[in-house]
Amino acid sequence: MNTLADFPAIPAGWAYLDTAATSQKPQAVIDAITRGYDRDYATVHRGVYQRSADMTLAYEAARRRVASFIGGREDEIVFVRGATEGINLVAQNWAGTQLEAGDRILLSTLEHHSNIVPWQMVTERVGAAIDVVPLTADHRIDLDAMAAMLTERHKLVALAHVSNVLGSVLDARRAADLAHGVGAKILIDGCQAVPRMAVDVAALDCDFYVFSGHKLYGPTGIGVLWGRAELLDAMPPYQGGGSMIDRVTFAKTTYAPAPTRFEAGTPHIVGVLGLHAAIDYVEGIGLDRIHAHETALVAEARARLSQINSVTLFGPEDSAGIVSFAIEGVHPHDIGTILDEDRVAIRAGHHCAQPLMDALGVPATARASFGVYNTLADVEALARGIERVTRIFG
Amino acid sequence: MNTLADFPAIPAGWAYLDTAATSQKPQAVIDAITRGYDRDYATVHRGVYQRSADMTLAYEAARRRVASFIGGREDEIVFVRGATEGINLVAQNWAGTQLEAGDRILLSTLEHHSNIVPWQMVTERVGAAIDVVPLTADHRIDLDAMAAMLTERHKLVALAHVSNVLGSVLDARRAADLAHGVGAKILIDGCQAVPRMAVDVAALDCDFYVFSGHKLYGPTGIGVLWGRAELLDAMPPYQGGGSMIDRVTFAKTTYAPAPTRFEAGTPHIVGVLGLHAAIDYVEGIGLDRIHAHETALVAEARARLSQINSVTLFGPEDSAGIVSFAIEGVHPHDIGTILDEDRVAIRAGHHCAQPLMDALGVPATARASFGVYNTLADVEALARGIERVTRIFG
Repeated sequence: MNTLADFPAIPAGWAYLDTAATSQKPQAVIDAITRGYDRDYATVHRGVYQRSADMTLAYEAARRRVASFIGGREDEIVFVRGATEGINLVAQNWAGTQLEAGDRILLSTLEHHSNIVPWQMVTERVGAAIDVVPLTADHRIDLDAMAAMLTERHKLVALAHVSNVLGSVLDARRAADLAHGVGAKILIDGCQAVPRMAVDVAALDCDFYVFSGHKLYGPTGIGVLWGRAELLDAMPPYQGGGSMIDRVTFAKTTYAPAPTRFEAGTPHIVGVLGLHAAIDYVEGIGLDRIHAHETALVAEARARLSQINSVTLFGPEDSAGIVSFAIEGVHPHDIGTILDEDRVAIRAGHHCAQPLMDALGVPATARASFGVYNTLADVEALARGIERVTRIFG
Repeated sequence: MNTLADFPAIPAGWAYLDTAATSQKPQAVIDAITRGYDRDYATVHRGVYQRSADMTLAYEAARRRVASFIGGREDEIVFVRGATEGINLVAQNWAGTQLEAGDRILLSTLEHHSNIVPWQMVTERVGAAIDVVPLTADHRIDLDAMAAMLTERHKLVALAHVSNVLGSVLDARRAADLAHGVGAKILIDGCQAVPRMAVDVAALDCDFYVFSGHKLYGPTGIGVLWGRAELLDAMPPYQGGGSMIDRVTFAKTTYAPAPTRFEAGTPHIVGVLGLHAAIDYVEGIGLDRIHAHETALVAEARARLSQINSVTLFGPEDSAGIVSFAIEGVHPHDIGTILDEDRVAIRAGHHCAQPLMDALGVPATARASFGVYNTLADVEALARGIERVTRIFG
């Protein structure tokens, strides 16, 4: 795969290995954004003039494109700011109205804070509780343990499809079957999955699925909440404002159906157009090819790093595009700083997953994450950089 | 003022008169967005590499720029999706925790749905009630009536600085003084004010102020909530997720201070950069010049339209940049459609202000709204178009 030329913000010789934080943008996405502002710009859903009618068609075409991308229905796609907002929306408007005191939510040890804190906020409010599925020895969510933990009091399971720290891939279909076995719903955080593998919410049989555009080679400020139509239909409105209403009087306001009910105010119009272009881009390459490409880079990176004595690798061997590691006696931030001198950009920190850090027994990890633009040369640069770190601290 | 050349999406001969819905973007804003993606792109607040550190500086520089633009403090600026989200945030997190059963909120007849529905949702939840300040004969919020209506039970007043339908300008300082006189807080919806006149929240002495970037010649998907530091500090977190936390464990999560506490997840990074450029753009022209320019266009438009017998003009003579009108016997949508044939883009509808439509006794109005790029030629095109409408329906 040779896509580097599609990415103007990656200069020659820069190994960008922070795609799990956010991906760089292909020119096709940047062009879609630019056209949205410099040629086609207008508001949506309201204008009586042609430009606005055209923009509305483009906006709704993007919704259909997202639906077909993940195997959902058009009226099941809610545009949100990002995955974080999508999870908060479900926590407030589904869990906040469906859960009662004594009910339970099941999460896992490896969840991102965005898939922990919203549930803490809502369970505290309604008097529900959270259980935490542990990890297997090779750092996957332990679905056998989950099967043993689930009870009739569990109303929701919320799990990452791919861990943002470890790259562990969840068997989401099995998790959904387990959740449904006790009558619970399941939300899948697809942030790291959607850019890395083909996702079909119908095949996964999940109930909610969220992802962010900016991790999928798309613009910032836009994300997707997919929810089963019957669940969205039963949820109360989210934010109040323009577009989400049917009729407003001071005496009584009635609301529009889903997904409009959840999209108050002028939406991030151009973000939606850019997301459409990003989906076209990744599907143009093929998610299966992308997955194979990133899996090969991970295998090579793990092979190279495992030859360095002081390096500890976290996560399973078949991690999807992400490698977390530690070097004995070196703080991950120092690893990141030294690698930056070598023009290798990685992330060091808790990766918004402090409970996972606690479980791994480390304050932080160094993380290299791959995207479509990375090559074996980037792995080589990473390995050389790590070798230099070990010499400096050796 | 001759800024038309700055706006690539306005072709020659197109009279774009829907700026109150959303403004077109100057090349400088589009360039800032493009550079954000094609040269400087990285995540913020997390990266240990230089590109991310630079982007974080740019992101926080934009926050300072917004603060200086409206006369607030840097730590009082919360980036939100738009004004709608800003109002909902205050409704949920300030009113939702401060109001008790029996308390009252004061709104006005001319508010946008985004400044009505969030208050309906929260008052219904806590058992509070809403009072509605009527309009004066010339369609301003009647502050004398407001003075008579305010009681000690009123905990919040929320008013539009400039009406999105009528262009009526609120004496926001007097409104704030009245609110504070009974111990109430005041939120000002500045969506239509910030692009049209100099705003200084300190001089206005208000408590919360919101506006949207896309109406200020900036990108979609970004807006600002300004709140007094002591009010923001006392508010609970908003959405849960990355960045807004101090420390997460499954046993107990602690939160970051404001404004970070309200900004969960990866923000709309490039939207923030674009908003910075938009502020530079309007301040480069000067808000006083923009205000004078738009006031002159409104005066000319009102003068021209008032000569047409079947036209009714709404709003005060000194409307800021916005003219709403009706033509006897012609539905506003038909006006909009016919004007579109003449390459004049206006809006027709309820403008997300159904209670105001009810008060005006019309189902809808036609609305022409001006921006920095409009000229007397656009007013002439509007007037000629209206004359054609009256001939067609005459």
